[in-house]
Amino acid sequence: MITRREANMGLIAVALAASMPRFAVAQATMVVLPPPKTTGGKPLMEALRARHSTREFADRKLEPQLLSNLLWAAWGINRPQSGLRTAPSSGESMDIGVYLTMADGVWIYDPKAHAIAQLIPDDVRGETTTGQAYVKTAPLNLVYVSDAARMRNPSPTNRALNGIADSAVIGQNVYLFCASEGLACVLRASVPGAQLAQRLQLKPTQAIYLAQSVGYPKT
Amino acid sequence: MITRREANMGLIAVALAASMPRFAVAQATMVVLPPPKTTGGKPLMEALRARHSTREFADRKLEPQLLSNLLWAAWGINRPQSGLRTAPSSGESMDIGVYLTMADGVWIYDPKAHAIAQLIPDDVRGETTTGQAYVKTAPLNLVYVSDAARMRNPSPTNRALNGIADSAVIGQNVYLFCASEGLACVLRASVPGAQLAQRLQLKPTQAIYLAQSVGYPKT
Repeated sequence: MITRREANMGLIAVALAASMPRFAVAQATMVVLPPPKTTGGKPLMEALRARHSTREFADRKLEPQLLSNLLWAAWGINRPQSGLRTAPSSGESMDIGVYLTMADGVWIYDPKAHAIAQLIPDDVRGETTTGQAYVKTAPLNLVYVSDAARMRNPSPTNRALNGIADSAVIGQNVYLFCASEGLACVLRASVPGAQLAQRLQLKPTQAIYLAQSVGYPKT
Repeated sequence: MITRREANMGLIAVALAASMPRFAVAQATMVVLPPPKTTGGKPLMEALRARHSTREFADRKLEPQLLSNLLWAAWGINRPQSGLRTAPSSGESMDIGVYLTMADGVWIYDPKAHAIAQLIPDDVRGETTTGQAYVKTAPLNLVYVSDAARMRNPSPTNRALNGIADSAVIGQNVYLFCASEGLACVLRASVPGAQLAQRLQLKPTQAIYLAQSVGYPKT
């Protein structure tokens, strides 16, 4: 079944009926993003020169093409044959799920489909912080979710080591993309991990260590 | 006192006598790197497209200018007034020391002087891994050292969370620099942290979580 939930944004929305449990009442919505532009941007050394943290955001949503480019830069597939990504992953576990908390709900990025699927219709942006007031003013708060079920050796030490490292490298991609595009962002370790995991209905093998606020800079 | 230990490489070497304890017998050597080239490189999206891990290296040292650019990209000062860097650091703790293990010893990067200071004259590259044979074939193995003494709240959880995240973001800068310059590299979590900390004569507040092998690709 195909709907056109976001047709005015030029996006194609498709119901994920096939992959939903039979008993599900809610219908998951998947928004296929415009193909990412994987060329251009500032020369790398200039992006590094411009890299910085910003905690003030304009009250403005990210456009679909920019969101598409951002998500590809963050954790997109850069080698289609193997499915490998723009950021490394310990033991190629691909343990990270990039969750997007926006005003219109919580979404998860699907790198293969280059799409986002809605998980929860609520605005939980303010719940991704332990108390930083600016967080809910950012149009997008990325939450990096690591799944130990994808690791070969999910000992407690490895869960944290791999989960944190695999989140942070994605966060640095986002920093450099924002530096290149003149966007504002900040990577945050002050995240109420256990509480937020419950809110996002995560499995016991999933854990949250880092989040990142992203938006246009306040003018 | 100024010597010219590496004059043939166009480097200036200065003895660190002033900052050494009076009882020190060994004389530390500091090599001031050529100024980094902070412009150019591949456009960011193309660097992200080229980002990948490589575990095969040519038997060839990195040239001083390339090493200079690499270290600046990794953890250099990109805002001279504040001393802030190309990678973020939890709570601006600047907890990470970038150690270079090379054939000619162990060196530490000093971002302010944009120099490297020799700590140990031994080749410990092979000791930065829990058993991966390729590691000692890379001309440079970066070791990221986090110092909890620099953190505002060095609880056990924060030590690991901040130390790992602050190392990994630097590692991703190195990945993208290598992708831009056609170098080979791999970020590694299989590091004998405690053992290596002892070998590098670290303080009890310092810990190692990640290392990264860097070099020219094997042809």
